[in-house]
Amino acid sequence: MTIINRRTFTTLSLLAAASSALPQSAEAQMPLRFAPVGLGVISNIFMEACAQSTKCKVTALVTGHAQQKAPKYEALYGISPKNVYDYGNYDEIAHNPEIDAVYIGLPNSMHAEYTIRAAKAGKHVLCEKPMAISSKECRQMIDACRQNNVKLMIAYRLHYDPLWQRIRQLARSGAIGEIQGFQGGFYGSKTSGWRLNRKLAGGGSLLDMGIYPLNAIRWLSGEEPDHFAAQVATKISGPRFAQVEESIEFNMRFPSGILASSGSSYGEDAPAYLSVDGTEGNLWVEPAYGYQGLKYHGSTIHGPVSDASPNKLPYQFLAEADHFADCVRDNRTPATPGEEGLKDLLAIEAIYRAAGKPIA
Amino acid sequence: MTIINRRTFTTLSLLAAASSALPQSAEAQMPLRFAPVGLGVISNIFMEACAQSTKCKVTALVTGHAQQKAPKYEALYGISPKNVYDYGNYDEIAHNPEIDAVYIGLPNSMHAEYTIRAAKAGKHVLCEKPMAISSKECRQMIDACRQNNVKLMIAYRLHYDPLWQRIRQLARSGAIGEIQGFQGGFYGSKTSGWRLNRKLAGGGSLLDMGIYPLNAIRWLSGEEPDHFAAQVATKISGPRFAQVEESIEFNMRFPSGILASSGSSYGEDAPAYLSVDGTEGNLWVEPAYGYQGLKYHGSTIHGPVSDASPNKLPYQFLAEADHFADCVRDNRTPATPGEEGLKDLLAIEAIYRAAGKPIA
Repeated sequence: MTIINRRTFTTLSLLAAASSALPQSAEAQMPLRFAPVGLGVISNIFMEACAQSTKCKVTALVTGHAQQKAPKYEALYGISPKNVYDYGNYDEIAHNPEIDAVYIGLPNSMHAEYTIRAAKAGKHVLCEKPMAISSKECRQMIDACRQNNVKLMIAYRLHYDPLWQRIRQLARSGAIGEIQGFQGGFYGSKTSGWRLNRKLAGGGSLLDMGIYPLNAIRWLSGEEPDHFAAQVATKISGPRFAQVEESIEFNMRFPSGILASSGSSYGEDAPAYLSVDGTEGNLWVEPAYGYQGLKYHGSTIHGPVSDASPNKLPYQFLAEADHFADCVRDNRTPATPGEEGLKDLLAIEAIYRAAGKPIA
Repeated sequence: MTIINRRTFTTLSLLAAASSALPQSAEAQMPLRFAPVGLGVISNIFMEACAQSTKCKVTALVTGHAQQKAPKYEALYGISPKNVYDYGNYDEIAHNPEIDAVYIGLPNSMHAEYTIRAAKAGKHVLCEKPMAISSKECRQMIDACRQNNVKLMIAYRLHYDPLWQRIRQLARSGAIGEIQGFQGGFYGSKTSGWRLNRKLAGGGSLLDMGIYPLNAIRWLSGEEPDHFAAQVATKISGPRFAQVEESIEFNMRFPSGILASSGSSYGEDAPAYLSVDGTEGNLWVEPAYGYQGLKYHGSTIHGPVSDASPNKLPYQFLAEADHFADCVRDNRTPATPGEEGLKDLLAIEAIYRAAGKPIA
C-alpha cells in the first residue's frame, strides 16, 4: 500500500497535468475499434458517427443477415470480410484483436445476452437503451462486465448533447428557483415491427420512448423516485396492440417532494416535451428527445431564455461514442454506466407494477 | 295532459320559429338582474361583463364588507344602496323583485350554502367552479334548485369561448384521427390566501386549477373517466402548505380506452396547456385556460392548423352570462348545468382517493 501525503499528491497532480500537455503516445491515439451488433436504423447512425470520429472506428460487424447487409458496410467503412460475425459465431470475437468493443443495437430482449457474451469475450460494451427488459438482467450485465474487467456504458445520448447539458446546468443553477416538478412525454402513432412484440421488446412504449422523459427527469432532479402511480390503456383494437399496451401515463414522487408526470405511446401523436418547473420559473424543452433540432425556452429569475441545438445527426452519437472511447482509454467510469440503466429499469418495473401490468 | 301528435308538433314548431323572428316582447328583452355574492377578483370581472351585456345587469350586491366595497360598485353600475346585502340578511333577497339571479363568486366551501339559500329565495344561480367541495354538496345544490324551480349553471367559462368551441369541434371531427389521449396541466407558484386554507378551499390546486384541464378533457372526450391514478406532493416546507398539498399529478382512463394525464400546482411554474392526441395528428392548446390570449396549433390530416382568440377580457364571462340569461328567459337547461359540476367533483374525489388524500 502506498501512502500519498498532500505534498506527494500535489506533485503527482502537477506531473499528470504536464504529461497531458505532451503529445499522446501512438497507442493512446489509436481509435476504439467497434463491432456493432445488429444492423438496424440505430446501428447505422452509430456507424456514421464512428466514421466522423477520430476516437472510434467500426472494424467488424455482427449480423444475422451477412450476405445482404455486410458488403455495403464493408465498402463504406473499410471493414474486412473476415471481421463479419453472425449470432452463432459471435463468441469468436474473443479471438479477434481488431475488436475492442461492441455496440449493442439489438431489440431490447437481446441486450442482456449479447452484452454478457461480449464481456466474456473480453470486449467493452456500449449498449443501447433500454439497458435490458428487467432489473435482474441489468444486474447480470453489470456483474459480467465487472468480472471480465470491461467497461459498460448505456447509450443515453441526451447526456452527451451540449444543449441538454446546458438545460441541466440551468435547471440546477437556481435560475428557476428550486425545482418542484416535471411534466413530459414522448408519443408516436406509427410504431410497428419488433417493438410491438412483447418477447422482443419486453414491454410497451415506456421501454422505448417513455424512458427518455423518465431518464431526463431522474438526471435533472439528481434523485431517485420512490413512489409511483400509473395507468396503461389500449384504445386501438385488433392484433397491433395484442402484446404490448398502446399508451402509458405515470407519475413519480421523489424523496425531496419533487413530483413528476410523464407518458408515452405507440398509438397517439403528441409533441415530445419536458417541462422543468421551479418555484421562480420554468424551462420548456421541445422537441426534447430527437436526434437533432432540439430547443428550449423558458422564464428565469434573470429573464426569458431560449436556445436551440445547431448540430446535425449524428452529433449525439458521436459525442457518446467519443466519451466511451475516452473512458476505455483512461480507465474511467462512463457518465452513464450500467448502474444508470439499472436505475431506469427499476423505475420502469415500479411504474408497470403501479399500472397493474407485468413488464415481461 | 295534452297529447301532441306529429302534425300538431310541427305546427307548433313553425309558430315558434315564426315568433322568434318577430320583435321580442319588452319582458323578454329585459336584462337578467344579478346579485353577485362575494366581491373578489372573479366577481369584479363578472360585473364588468354584465356592464357590457344587453342581457345581464348587476342590480344588487352581497358582501361582508359593504361599507368599504359597496359605494364603488353602486357608482359604477348604478346599484341602489337598498339592494346591498350581507351574509346575515342574504335570505331577504327573496323579497326583492329587482334580483332575478345570483352569481356565486365565494371561496369554494361556501358555494353550496349560498346556492341553496338563493334557490330557497327563488333566485336563479350561476355558480363559479368548482361547484362545491364534495359531490354530496353538488347533489344538494342540484336538488335545491330543482325543488325551487330555478336554473343552476356552473361558470365553466371555457365552454363559452369560441376558440375552445372550435378546438372541440376540430378534435371531434376526425381531423386528428380518433382521439387516443390527452396531456394537460395548469400550474402557478404564487398562490396565497384562502386557497391554501382547507376549510375554505376544500382541497388543493386540483379544485381551483386542475379542474380546468380535467373539465376540458371530459368535455372534449365526451366520456366520463372510470379509472384513476394520482399522487400529491409538497416540497416547500413551512406553514404555506400545511393544509393543502402543493402539487398533484393524476391520470384518468375512459371507457373507450382514452388515457389522459394532467396536473396542477400552487408552488411551481409551468405553462397552462392541453395536448389533444389523435391517431393522425395533435392539437396543442397553450395558453389554454386564461381569461384571454388563448391559442392552439396542431397537425391534422388536412395539414397544419393554428388559431388564436382575438377577444379581450371579460369576453368569456360575457358569453357565459348571456347564455345563462338566454336559458332563464327560454326556460332551457344551461350547457354547463349543476350535473356538469357534479361530474367534475366525482372525478376530483376519485383522484384524491387514488392519491390517498382526503378531499375535505
